[in-house]
This record gives sequence, structure tokens and C-alpha cells, in this order.
Amino acid sequence: MQNQERLDRMRQAMETERVDALVLRLPENVLLLSGFWPMIGATVLVFPLEGPSVCIIPHCYESEARLSLWEAETVYYRYGVLDAPDPVSILRDVLCRVARGKGWKRVGYEGDFEAVAPSWNSAEILVPAARTRELYRAVFDGSELIDVSLLLHAQRRRKTSYEIGKLRTVCEISCVGLEAFERSVDVGISGVELAAGVEREVMVQGTGHQGAFRVRAYAQVAVGPDESAVGYRPNEVSTRRRLERGDVALLELAVVADGYWADRTRVRIAGGPSQEQLKVFDTVRIAQEAAVAAIRPGTSGAQVDEVARSVIRDAGYGDFFPHITGHGVGFAYHEVVPKLAPGSTDPLEEGMVTSVEPGVYFKPCGGFRIEDDILVTKNGSDILGPFSKAIA
Amino acid sequence: MQNQERLDRMRQAMETERVDALVLRLPENVLLLSGFWPMIGATVLVFPLEGPSVCIIPHCYESEARLSLWEAETVYYRYGVLDAPDPVSILRDVLCRVARGKGWKRVGYEGDFEAVAPSWNSAEILVPAARTRELYRAVFDGSELIDVSLLLHAQRRRKTSYEIGKLRTVCEISCVGLEAFERSVDVGISGVELAAGVEREVMVQGTGHQGAFRVRAYAQVAVGPDESAVGYRPNEVSTRRRLERGDVALLELAVVADGYWADRTRVRIAGGPSQEQLKVFDTVRIAQEAAVAAIRPGTSGAQVDEVARSVIRDAGYGDFFPHITGHGVGFAYHEVVPKLAPGSTDPLEEGMVTSVEPGVYFKPCGGFRIEDDILVTKNGSDILGPFSKAIA
Repeated sequence: MQNQERLDRMRQAMETERVDALVLRLPENVLLLSGFWPMIGATVLVFPLEGPSVCIIPHCYESEARLSLWEAETVYYRYGVLDAPDPVSILRDVLCRVARGKGWKRVGYEGDFEAVAPSWNSAEILVPAARTRELYRAVFDGSELIDVSLLLHAQRRRKTSYEIGKLRTVCEISCVGLEAFERSVDVGISGVELAAGVEREVMVQGTGHQGAFRVRAYAQVAVGPDESAVGYRPNEVSTRRRLERGDVALLELAVVADGYWADRTRVRIAGGPSQEQLKVFDTVRIAQEAAVAAIRPGTSGAQVDEVARSVIRDAGYGDFFPHITGHGVGFAYHEVVPKLAPGSTDPLEEGMVTSVEPGVYFKPCGGFRIEDDILVTKNGSDILGPFSKAIA
Repeated sequence: MQNQERLDRMRQAMETERVDALVLRLPENVLLLSGFWPMIGATVLVFPLEGPSVCIIPHCYESEARLSLWEAETVYYRYGVLDAPDPVSILRDVLCRVARGKGWKRVGYEGDFEAVAPSWNSAEILVPAARTRELYRAVFDGSELIDVSLLLHAQRRRKTSYEIGKLRTVCEISCVGLEAFERSVDVGISGVELAAGVEREVMVQGTGHQGAFRVRAYAQVAVGPDESAVGYRPNEVSTRRRLERGDVALLELAVVADGYWADRTRVRIAGGPSQEQLKVFDTVRIAQEAAVAAIRPGTSGAQVDEVARSVIRDAGYGDFFPHITGHGVGFAYHEVVPKLAPGSTDPLEEGMVTSVEPGVYFKPCGGFRIEDDILVTKNGSDILGPFSKAIA
């Protein structure tokens, strides 16, 4: 099934911006416009305003490409073996052939992606740098090269029904991880053991769910107030610290399934919460649910943020919620649009998918955050992969 | 303990190349010259030829930085929270202050790293793109900006004794994964289950080994001839295919511990090998051990490659070994230097660390590869994290 809505929308945007063709290398953008999530960043997609796409793919990944690539001309090139040509020279030859006679005046490329989503084997990431820019300049020497990073982010903000289906799948898979976490939190287990167990379960049980082929989880579990409430931060480290009675365990979980991302958070208390922990948890839960309920087309990111923030402020924890309420998610763990934050005036639109993740980080109770991924629907919102929020 | 040898060597190279300062953002290069493996790519290191380094770090990662950073001036900046300034503007201010009055004529930056090593949470990678180049141009507007990617790769090729200790640790940790794999291969288990189990064990048992703090594994297990011998390729996908009696299971394993990488491969047969499988396996094993034995300073990459290749050729499998024999490893899963391959004339040098990984991919037997990471010593070689090579 081809994601025709996406192709049409992108071509419309290219027409408006007078871009004749896109040349894309980042796996997240190749996926967006070809259906194929490259194994590594050695695949190049040429997406013209008129005529068929051309996808240039390492020969050894042909079987994976055939599973998912939409209508496109394909060129397979020898890669990673002794008789393979220099990748830059083969790409130059193929791209020159593709561009020849097209008369493209303006060609768009990924000039300013500083946050990059990895492919499935994220031990190594290929990104375009100087030699790719030189390659593009050599191939498209009669054209103007346009950085279309902003255009791509803007296009990615509203998901098509095809993409929403994929995001529903990955969010359902993320529930496997949330469930493994809930089942495992207990006095004596460490953050490392919890994180590693969650990642294992997501890969084992998630692979194959709704046909998902390449699934991986990235879990971080902060344990106890020293780790979870030192002040909110974008990345935690899972350590060997073992849960003691009354300790918070805070799970931050990214899951990718065939290039589509989920971003979830849950918190549990080993052996049951204190009165104050319960109060903080309930505050965060109510704030999160109120923010979700406030989501609908036309509402601004700032309004949704304020709904969550006012609940937390009214409960007396306003100083302990130092971060934004949510961000776009889908083709990456964090997408630029939308942003649920003070001052974010852009209206929510049908088809956006956003995290909603208020948190309170309050010693000596610990850090508390609850996060789901929410689809903006025609009249309101829909939680992708709903999952319970019990604390113990 | 500071890695003084590294700092001295780098300053010597900078003097030769007339580079007055380096400005580095990629976690692998910040680690190289500061001892701190950034949590994400939002840390910037300024490494001048004269005077102290300055490390600019998100405030929320101060505790991790304090654990490992060598002597350096530190600047912590608010990051990822509501009251944080725009990262580009804060970095510009700090870098301007650092550069002021220094009279640096030539400043080196990472212009052409197209293969990037992720940090521990590899669900998202920050890399320098257009806005970072603009930032550098604005800050160092009186200086010439020099792409030092090749210089960095050249410097990274010979490891210091400090770094060798770190690489020994990560290679020892990788043995946890090899052991879990050997223990688990059996009729009925799937590639996904094997890969997920290996990753879990490495994180759980590896974290804390020799003080390792952030440990993660990336396992890929190809099962049976259709998956393992379709032709060698740099990335496999673990699938839900279950091992049948006589099937090969081929594990490709990357492990990172605090920014230092290991790259290992082992192969096992479920239920014991056929005569021909045993012959292929023994050929690969003998080729691998012969290549390791041939490693010493002054030998070329091509010579070592030919040692492995001739063993495989003489056994009649020459057409089924389509890739190079080895590559550098250490600050990334794959490093550019050395290269054990036909035509690779550069001599091996003491302190290099290289993978040695001949393979034979031969239907209907399956794909066979054995890979260890080898240190080039004064008189020969040393296997980092030795591990058995039994097939069943």
C-alpha cells in the first residue's frame, strides 16, 4: 500500500516552494517519501516534483527494500564488498544519470538536521557531511541547492492515515515494555536490570506485531530520588543501584518499529507509595489527563501546556515542573513540531502526534512523569497504545 | 587519571599542521581529548594548542562529567528546561569568550564525519550540520576554519595505554554476550530471541565491570543459510525464524562501554555441524588465527589480509569470502585506519587495534565468520578479551 496522501502533499509543498526535486539520505526522510526504512544511511532517494522517484540502494539490502518500497525506480549498487566501487563515485554516476535532461532549477537537500534518528542498527549512523555536499554540488551544478530541512519538518508535522497506522503499531509495541516494567519493579532490582529487561521484551514480543519487522527499544530507568529528581534532564543513565522500599523507578522509553517512533514514560514505587508520593503521582496523572483532554485542532501548544501546568501549580509543585509538556513524535524520537510549551502559539492540527509528559521532580519523593503519545483527531484526541498509569 | 600521552600527541600533530585550536562536538572526539563521553552531542570541547581545554556541558550532565573529565575548564549551561537559553546563542557567547584575545589563526572542526558513533542513548544522535558551521564561522570570524576529520582519524589510529585499558574492558564485556549466545543457541530459538538475550546480558553483567558506567550492546543474529549466506552484508536483521537442526546462527555484536567499542562475531550450529559445515568453520577459524598470528608492526594490511585469504582460497572457498579481513575499532564500531584488505599498503603500527574477521558465506552450509579485536603490540599482537571459538 502506497502512502499517496504523503506524496501528494509533499509535491504540493514543493510546487509552492518551487523545488523541482529532493535528494534525501537520512533514513527518516527516505522512509517518509519511499516507504523503505534504510538499513543504514547509504540509500539515497531522489524525489522529483514530476515523474517517478529513484531509490539508490546498497545491493545487499535488496530483500528488505522489496518488502516495503513504494512505486519507485530502483538502482542497486555494490556496497561493503571487495568489488564495490567507491560509494561517492557510484552515487555521483547514478545521480548524474537521474538528473540528466531534467532541467531542475532548484534541488532540495537535508542541510540542517542536527538531531538525527538512527536506523535499526544504531551502533553506527551515516549522515551527510562535507563529501555529500560536494557530491550534490558536482551533480546538480546547474541547479540551485536549497536546504529543505524546515520544509521537511513542516511536512512531517501532520501524519497521514498510513503513518497513523504505523504509529499506532509502534505505540502498541511500546506497551510491551511498559508492562514488563510494571511487572518487574520490586525491592532489590536495579535500574540496569529493569532497562535491559524492558528492551529485551520489546524486541522479542514486539517483532512481528502487526507485521513490524525491525523493532528496538531504548530504555532508561532512574531509581530513587537521587537519580530521578536531581532535576529533570533529557537523558538518564540506568545504574546498578537497587530499588529500596519506597523508591521511585522512572522509565523513559523510546521504541522504534520500522522507522516509526514511540516515546513513553511510566513511574512505579517499589513496595507502595508514601502519602506524599501518592499526592505527587496523582497530581502528575491528573495534569497529564487534563492536557490530553484539552487537545483538539485549533488549540495552541501553549494552551495545552498551561492546562497541565496549572494543575501542577495549584497542587503546589509548580517550581518542580521545569520542562515542556510535549513535543512531536513519529519519524524521530523527538520531532520539532508541535511543541506543547509556554509561548507556543501555533495551533494544533488534525493528524499531529504529540507526546504529553508533565512531570514533577521533588526531593525527597523522587521524580514523577507520565507520558503517552497522542493523535490530534478531527474533534479531539486519541491515545495511541493506551496503557494504565498505576503507581504500584 | 589523565591520558597525557593522547594530549601530547594531539598537540604535536596540531603543531605540525599549524592548527591553533580544535572545536569538537561529536561524542567520540570529545571523549578522545577530554575523557568525558557526552550523554548526547550537546557538549562542545575547545582544545587549544596552548593553554587549558574548555568543555561546555549541559548543566544536567554535570555529575557524569565530574566522574570522568580530565583537567579542563568547565562551563555548564542550562539545557532542556524552560529557562534554558537557545543552545546556539549560548554556545556562541561562551565560544566567543573562550576565543577572545587568543589570536587563533587556524581552528579545526569536524567537517566530514559521515559515519558517526552514537552516545549511550542512541535513540537520537546530535551531529554538527549547517547551524553549527554558521556558529563556528560567526565565532571564529578572524580565523581560518580547517576540516580536521582526516587528522582526527589519523590520530585515533594508534591507541595509548590508557585507551588500550578501556578497549580491553569493553572487549572483556563483549565476552558476556558471546557466552550468552553460545549458551542459548539451540533448536527452536529465534534470531530475535538470541539477539535480545545477548543485549540484555551485556547490559546487566557488563555495567560495572572494571568500573564501566554506560554499557550497551547491539546484536544481530542471522539464522540458517537463507539469512546468513545470502551474501555478506554489513548489517543483518534478526528475525523470528527459529533454528532448525543443523542451522547456522551467526552473531554480529557491537558493544560500547563508556564510549569505547568492541566488534565481535561468533557462529554456532544448532544440534551440531555437518561434515561440510565443520570444514567451512575450521577453514574460517584457521584463517582467522593465521591472520592474527601475522599481525605485527611493519606488516601491511594487505599482507595480513592475504594470510587469511590464502587459507580460505586453498580450501576452495575463495569465491565465498567477499569482504575485507579487518578494520580499525575503538572510538567507533568501525574506524577508518587500519584496514586489512587487498591493496592496503600502510604498515601496521604498535598501538593499533583492528578487527580480524574472515568469513565464508556458502549455501547450503550457511554463513561463517569469526571476529576478534586485536591489539598490535611491539613484537606481535594481543587478543583483547579472548574467547573460545567452538561451533557447537
